[in-house]
Amino acid sequence: MSGERTFIDLLRGIATDPAARGLADDAAVIAPPLGRELVLTHDMLVERVHYLPGDPPGDIAWKLVAVNLSDLAAKGATPLGVLMGYALARTQAWDAAFAAGLAEVLTAFSVPLLGGDTVAMPAGAPRAMGLTAIGSVAPGLAPARSGARDGDLLWGTGTIGDAGLGLRIALGELDGPAALLDAYRRPQPRLKVGQAVAPIVHAMADVSDGVLIDAGRIAAASGLAVTVDLDAVPLSDAFRSIAGEDRAARLTAVTSGDDYELLFAAPQQASEALLTICQPLGLTVSAIGRFTSGAGLDLHDSGGSVRLPERLGYEHGIAQRRT
Amino acid sequence: MSGERTFIDLLRGIATDPAARGLADDAAVIAPPLGRELVLTHDMLVERVHYLPGDPPGDIAWKLVAVNLSDLAAKGATPLGVLMGYALARTQAWDAAFAAGLAEVLTAFSVPLLGGDTVAMPAGAPRAMGLTAIGSVAPGLAPARSGARDGDLLWGTGTIGDAGLGLRIALGELDGPAALLDAYRRPQPRLKVGQAVAPIVHAMADVSDGVLIDAGRIAAASGLAVTVDLDAVPLSDAFRSIAGEDRAARLTAVTSGDDYELLFAAPQQASEALLTICQPLGLTVSAIGRFTSGAGLDLHDSGGSVRLPERLGYEHGIAQRRT
Repeated sequence: MSGERTFIDLLRGIATDPAARGLADDAAVIAPPLGRELVLTHDMLVERVHYLPGDPPGDIAWKLVAVNLSDLAAKGATPLGVLMGYALARTQAWDAAFAAGLAEVLTAFSVPLLGGDTVAMPAGAPRAMGLTAIGSVAPGLAPARSGARDGDLLWGTGTIGDAGLGLRIALGELDGPAALLDAYRRPQPRLKVGQAVAPIVHAMADVSDGVLIDAGRIAAASGLAVTVDLDAVPLSDAFRSIAGEDRAARLTAVTSGDDYELLFAAPQQASEALLTICQPLGLTVSAIGRFTSGAGLDLHDSGGSVRLPERLGYEHGIAQRRT
Repeated sequence: MSGERTFIDLLRGIATDPAARGLADDAAVIAPPLGRELVLTHDMLVERVHYLPGDPPGDIAWKLVAVNLSDLAAKGATPLGVLMGYALARTQAWDAAFAAGLAEVLTAFSVPLLGGDTVAMPAGAPRAMGLTAIGSVAPGLAPARSGARDGDLLWGTGTIGDAGLGLRIALGELDGPAALLDAYRRPQPRLKVGQAVAPIVHAMADVSDGVLIDAGRIAAASGLAVTVDLDAVPLSDAFRSIAGEDRAARLTAVTSGDDYELLFAAPQQASEALLTICQPLGLTVSAIGRFTSGAGLDLHDSGGSVRLPERLGYEHGIAQRRT
């Protein structure tokens, strides 16, 4: 049996939702939830560009799904399903391990595989894959990146910088706790928090290229300036155990990519409501800066101004970041 | 300015629908049409696999969109929009010509670009691109591939085999009318006919791998046998001027791929209604066979049985067909 046939059979075992039509039709057909808007996103992963050739295939499948669900989370959306475009890898064992990771991440977030396409790449070509995620949100409640207002606080979920250290562990440059490698390889899309805070926030985006870059993008899209308070940026115990928590460590954290936490802008008076809403969801949220009139990005630490680092975002050593 | 930035700016000029949020957000947000189901499909094109490296970039953009819209057509759907995953080509001129073709095909079929992702491939990698198309259809009216019934006629739209000759012209193996090359490079998704006949037909699919293969797939999915009448297969004047219309020519036509016509199964008594519905749409539909109990594919010509050719579908000389 050809590698393509074998892989599609594995996908059929995953795509059990009736909307997928057994992956045997030209297209998937779903009934959208009544009275909801649709949220659509598509992100690709390319070998040597977005992940290391030695990364475990199951983790790459996890990441492909997670980065797209993270975009849905940033719009407060509930996932409805995904379609995958997959360039067959060079061995059936790799494809099978990828399919197992795909089943795992889709089960973890209760998301059906609806369809897609599988192609053979010419010999020697890098592996590449794309995923479209579709979700739904209450009408008018998907926060834009561009909605921040003068005086809003900048909030972030979870902890920052773990995935950046995890990448250095994956590259063999560091030793460290498994939690850091996990943060890099198996990011957790913040769907529940995104859904919970979407009705309250003015703007929201996820952190893929680093807190400074992504906060700066919200500010620019909103026609505002943003200040990030380095000392307010939440660090995990695992991060601290390796990098400490001084200014240099904090600069490392905010210039790392791949956090897939959420950043959002909300008015000061919503702070208590935000903390109350998020408390039962098991994920901390922290106010880490503020938006003001003007333009550009400022960095503070212990109340004083800090010079911006030359490189605002962590560029993967391996090639070039997705934008 | 980087090639990526330049290309995204070109896409922003195309993605003017408000749902696309200026391609500056994590995701697109659209209100689905009330009381409709959603139809979703994703197909990829890879250089040297699905098209020739020398094909004009604008035509490749056309084909990427057209093959996906053809899948929507086969489900009777009206397009709502597309998301594109694009691996940057090696020159900005190529990318710009691709973007121009993209604008052209999206305008031709009134389909908005909603979002997507642009990535840089490692040096020397083939170009690759994927597209997700989303459409809508009245509830319950998207025909499955598996719905054909014993006694149904097999119908096809338009003419068959033009794209197969067009590919041979593109490969320099043949000289022929521009219409044939056009059929290969700029296929026309049969959206209007698909929408018009969807409420009447029992099963529908598009012809991507050849009439014999694709008719056989409808039969297999429906648990039936299918007979294709070679002499009923409609040929264009351009096709006839190059290949004639004898049995060998007809065998060439039904074993060619890339037609992107529609095949559907409908009860005999619906024939007049089908012809009446399609007549004002400017595209012929022809009964070219029938479904019966049993399994497998039979070929007839002038009422007599004809041996099946060894190769049922046209495999691109360049590598391997999409399934």
